[in-house]
Amino acid sequence: MNNALFAGLMENTRSKKPLVHCITNYVTVNDVANIVLACGASPVMADDIGEVADITAVSQATVINIGTLNSRTIESMMKAGITAAGLHHPVVLDPVGAGASELRKQTVYRLLDEIKFTVIRGNMSEIKTIAQGHKTGRGVDAAEADCVTEENLPETTAFVKALAVRTGAVIAMTGAIDLIASADTVYVCRNGHKSMSTITGSGCMLSALVAAFCGANPSQPLEAVAAAVSVMGVCGETAHQKTEMPGEGSGSFRSRLIDAVNLLTAEVFEKECRLEQF
Amino acid sequence: MNNALFAGLMENTRSKKPLVHCITNYVTVNDVANIVLACGASPVMADDIGEVADITAVSQATVINIGTLNSRTIESMMKAGITAAGLHHPVVLDPVGAGASELRKQTVYRLLDEIKFTVIRGNMSEIKTIAQGHKTGRGVDAAEADCVTEENLPETTAFVKALAVRTGAVIAMTGAIDLIASADTVYVCRNGHKSMSTITGSGCMLSALVAAFCGANPSQPLEAVAAAVSVMGVCGETAHQKTEMPGEGSGSFRSRLIDAVNLLTAEVFEKECRLEQF
Amino acid sequence: MNNALFAGLMENTRSKKPLVHCITNYVTVNDVANIVLACGASPVMADDIGEVADITAVSQATVINIGTLNSRTIESMMKAGITAAGLHHPVVLDPVGAGASELRKQTVYRLLDEIKFTVIRGNMSEIKTIAQGHKTGRGVDAAEADCVTEENLPETTAFVKALAVRTGAVIAMTGAIDLIASADTVYVCRNGHKSMSTITGSGCMLSALVAAFCGANPSQPLEAVAAAVSVMGVCGETAHQKTEMPGEGSGSFRSRLIDAVNLLTAEVFEKECRLEQF
Repeated sequence: MNNALFAGLMENTRSKKPLVHCITNYVTVNDVANIVLACGASPVMADDIGEVADITAVSQATVINIGTLNSRTIESMMKAGITAAGLHHPVVLDPVGAGASELRKQTVYRLLDEIKFTVIRGNMSEIKTIAQGHKTGRGVDAAEADCVTEENLPETTAFVKALAVRTGAVIAMTGAIDLIASADTVYVCRNGHKSMSTITGSGCMLSALVAAFCGANPSQPLEAVAAAVSVMGVCGETAHQKTEMPGEGSGSFRSRLIDAVNLLTAEVFEKECRLEQF
Repeated sequence: MNNALFAGLMENTRSKKPLVHCITNYVTVNDVANIVLACGASPVMADDIGEVADITAVSQATVINIGTLNSRTIESMMKAGITAAGLHHPVVLDPVGAGASELRKQTVYRLLDEIKFTVIRGNMSEIKTIAQGHKTGRGVDAAEADCVTEENLPETTAFVKALAVRTGAVIAMTGAIDLIASADTVYVCRNGHKSMSTITGSGCMLSALVAAFCGANPSQPLEAVAAAVSVMGVCGETAHQKTEMPGEGSGSFRSRLIDAVNLLTAEVFEKECRLEQF
Repeated sequence: MNNALFAGLMENTRSKKPLVHCITNYVTVNDVANIVLACGASPVMADDIGEVADITAVSQATVINIGTLNSRTIESMMKAGITAAGLHHPVVLDPVGAGASELRKQTVYRLLDEIKFTVIRGNMSEIKTIAQGHKTGRGVDAAEADCVTEENLPETTAFVKALAVRTGAVIAMTGAIDLIASADTVYVCRNGHKSMSTITGSGCMLSALVAAFCGANPSQPLEAVAAAVSVMGVCGETAHQKTEMPGEGSGSFRSRLIDAVNLLTAEVFEKECRLEQF
């Protein structure tokens, strides 16, 4: 595949240093800020409704992560998203635990109704919750599957593509195999390591990385998202290798993952990137 | 002692993977989430009153930690605790800094009045605050002591046992020596290392670990709490050993502690566990 | 220079163990708590208006960091600052991103109007925002510079000194070269390493360290601030050396920085401290 293109999008992020406005949960916010810095971008966290429009205006991308939403921050998310979309900035939605409570579900649907998102990034369960509730009814076969496998790629890729058509957003559905879809193209990413699920925040960090890559490459959102997903996967593999030998566990893996994003070169990424069009 | 029993409770936690609803402070929340994952359980952090009942309902245990309480989250704590207790889920209270302000003291007393806690986990000062204020007057001799020592074990164990009777909860009073008491049994735990007090969050992480162990072993709360306290102590010892040689300090200790919980095997725990009935 | 004096102020912090009340952002709060512990002091985080006065009263210093301010916490900051100043406790302001939104700017001006701060610690952009808006008009030449260099030291030191006169606070303007100014003395600190800017929180951690040092040495605020700034710089250098050889990145740097503060001895600090009066 066109790995040089993806590596170039990574390099753009390092050289353009986009400012990424993150309205994100307080569980993983420190890791989110550090991974944004590690990829060469700059994070700014601001969630008071009195300032989100100002902050969005000076940023190049916005990520809205509902992980620890509350009645106060939901309104800030709405305002930040509407402002960013109005400025034609990339806006990324991370619908953390969308199906876990009515509040999350209704908030996600409200966000999707009011804001034109550039990207929606979630795991299969979160993406399904969006597909089930947003405007149309079901009827998408892939909703039967529990996770993406080599066997169900025909259905799962059709599912994310259909959702990309309906929402107008790039859909990044991540797991053991990651799918990144626009209305007419789907990338399959086979990078990553299961150690990434031994820590909290792999998903939140990825969503912020996606926002950074889109902020630096606003005219190529699909490829920017694919590149970010693959970078995260490659760095998960690197971090696993670094922790395996000395017998380190999940606490060290977390630091090694951010190390890997910080130290990844275009050369290595070009070699390790495993993205394919389906 | 019956170390095989305690190791079995740890193994149950890994195999049952209970979902632990944490309403906890924003200082140590990331470490809390990561230690819950490290012991094999799953964390979910949610503190909006509009969703805590939904989240509690799908969880197997709840921990309420008042470390950075505010007027909004106090009401969420009340609702989550009442819902969880109503569902007969284990509910753990961590009364962080209970004596440091009137707000904390009154909040803790209100929580204790309304919610039937399964476990109360705190340091001696926090447990004393509870003993002094909750319903009965003082008169508990151990309130004279500043910390648990080999010498004052007769009084301090009597103190925690009396509080267990009064509250109906398992009391885990932790420090250099840890006491875990029900109305009729007290375990003394001699695991742990003083390095654990060089970082923030050792106590918060332990309370979440306690919730995870109780969620996986709901019919044996006393032994589940004792096992969790000992696991944390053993892992503190391991983390200390890992940092001592290469000359690492408290920043690395934090990662090594989570590593240790992630990597601890039943065999090692059975050998290192130092729990005794008093 | 008088490095023995600065090392003595560090030793005082370890022996007096001041309690530092931090109202700080949720992005870097864990690192802030851990660095306060690493230098020998104790942190307490509390931001509900119902308890900040109680918490301030039992603390020896207060730090107000506006990094993730909101309408609720702004009022808590006001109350905590006024209470602490009324008790003649050292109060430190960290005006994070002061120029990034009207809300931040107006909040900082309001805090400065109502509270007599002992120290203001920020980067050049934040300190300029304060200089431009607080009471007097502009006219300070150094506002032309983008960062402190060996060449512009005459203007930049004059600038911070003038601001110290106007605010009555010690001004710590930190960057590649750090300036620490009272109304009549300016220290230049040449410790530090650019790796410190690859992680979030270097500034927040420094502000809390400053508060800890002032809490332990309330009669020598200028020297206490200078010592804290230099300690942070020396530890940045140490952390860089520790990560360079094994090829670690920013994720590990973060832990190594806290390690370095935890392990720094008076002897090493006295040797490595690079503070000079301008």
